[in-house]
Amino acid sequence: MSLVKTIKELKEEIKRMSYGKDISIGFVPTMGYLHEGHISLIKKAKLENDIVVVSVFVNPTQFGPNEDFESYPRDIERDYNLSISGGADIVFNPNVDEMYPDGASTFVNVKGDITNKLCGKSRPTHFEGVTTVVSKLFNIVKPTNAYFGQKDAQQVAVIQKMVRDLFFDINIVSCPIVREEDGLAMSSRNVYLNEEERNQALILSKSLFKARDMFLDGERDANVLRKFIIDNINTKELANIDYVDIVDAKTLENVETINSKAIIALAVKFGKTRLIDNIYLEV
Amino acid sequence: MSLVKTIKELKEEIKRMSYGKDISIGFVPTMGYLHEGHISLIKKAKLENDIVVVSVFVNPTQFGPNEDFESYPRDIERDYNLSISGGADIVFNPNVDEMYPDGASTFVNVKGDITNKLCGKSRPTHFEGVTTVVSKLFNIVKPTNAYFGQKDAQQVAVIQKMVRDLFFDINIVSCPIVREEDGLAMSSRNVYLNEEERNQALILSKSLFKARDMFLDGERDANVLRKFIIDNINTKELANIDYVDIVDAKTLENVETINSKAIIALAVKFGKTRLIDNIYLEV
Repeated sequence: MSLVKTIKELKEEIKRMSYGKDISIGFVPTMGYLHEGHISLIKKAKLENDIVVVSVFVNPTQFGPNEDFESYPRDIERDYNLSISGGADIVFNPNVDEMYPDGASTFVNVKGDITNKLCGKSRPTHFEGVTTVVSKLFNIVKPTNAYFGQKDAQQVAVIQKMVRDLFFDINIVSCPIVREEDGLAMSSRNVYLNEEERNQALILSKSLFKARDMFLDGERDANVLRKFIIDNINTKELANIDYVDIVDAKTLENVETINSKAIIALAVKFGKTRLIDNIYLEV
Repeated sequence: MSLVKTIKELKEEIKRMSYGKDISIGFVPTMGYLHEGHISLIKKAKLENDIVVVSVFVNPTQFGPNEDFESYPRDIERDYNLSISGGADIVFNPNVDEMYPDGASTFVNVKGDITNKLCGKSRPTHFEGVTTVVSKLFNIVKPTNAYFGQKDAQQVAVIQKMVRDLFFDINIVSCPIVREEDGLAMSSRNVYLNEEERNQALILSKSLFKARDMFLDGERDANVLRKFIIDNINTKELANIDYVDIVDAKTLENVETINSKAIIALAVKFGKTRLIDNIYLEV
């Protein structure tokens, strides 16, 4: 069990723990301020691999110029303890200069609709930052399996596409959203919400659950489901919709009629806090 | 010794040859139509690794729309035999669909001057194609050492920067230019030259050698050396200069006074054929 700050230390630690054997490595990349969603990834990784590496790195390149990079919550001591309790063997917490040394200018880009739509529309440089830092981390950790939460459904689809396109020899495991008891999807950004915002934000999961019920009852028209959700969210005066879209689970292309696995994905601002949530529709 | 066409076969073959042991893999990525320059890379790889993989793939994404992708010379049987004679264990010759399956849209980009200048100026998408295909090949082959010829000096600098920035755990080995007896740098594109063009093209290496002599005699002013070469090349009526530049060997930034390792790099068209050549100046 160790907390390492540098790539060199991390590699030595992995080497030490592998005793020269060909071991499986489970990897959980995070931006820290861990919640039950992250812990569920760590626990799953522990079940499926010989050792588990958790990275805690607030990655500057995935934040836009007016976003919350500076104020993003950080607490490495808490994150370290939670990771270890969850079953992590190594917590990797590099600083920005370690991941982006002076003059670093190489970026990985998944081009096309898959990154331009949904969150990519209002956060145009976000996914380039994600795929770049995940590529770096993949090359450093060399995991067998890497674990991502389905709350960032678009991120999962983009990472899976990057892995296919660039032939990373890594199995991507996506894990279900973990929710608070009242339905709010767990997120490190939930701490930004005041009481009223948090109350009103419950409309997100409620509308998604109801839309899925309608789907399970036979509704296949994406526009009907989409309009239902938008109308519901708009009953809350603090809600400011960025998008509500129903898309193919793999390609993220918009669907009119739901004939294959789809995702209802949404992003809504409450005050200054932008929340995302989604639900899978299995045909 | 085998010729494989698919990634699956390649991985099986590498696995078979490694007998479950942790072996070193030397990798020589090429576009085929091999010449003595390539063979020198393969021989060096053979000396330094347990097994050697040579890839032969004319990569469409590194050609511009009006360049010679279609007409680029190909002869896989000859390439296979030359590779094996040079010491290769596996020749990997995928088709375009294998490397860029339907819908592949992920690209690796080294941004900045290092890719925008020299060849990047007249071939704006070239290096994106190179770094993308090399990333794919690195992830497929997982080499210990990868070998590149210094004739593509900018390519070597760009690949080295990509490897540093993305933390590929691969040692990049750059090897000296191999020349014909009369000094012409070996290139698969030399077959395009007619006799007169080929004769006049000798001015490239001749001017480079003379400029290096001037440097070794104490000339440190880059502009003097540059002007000398340009004037020399312009004595040949078929020569059409793209660029002649003197740059830092690592960053490729232009230098005024040569105080550290530098490269004189040039690209000149003779008829339709664009030739590149360069020479290192060691301080």
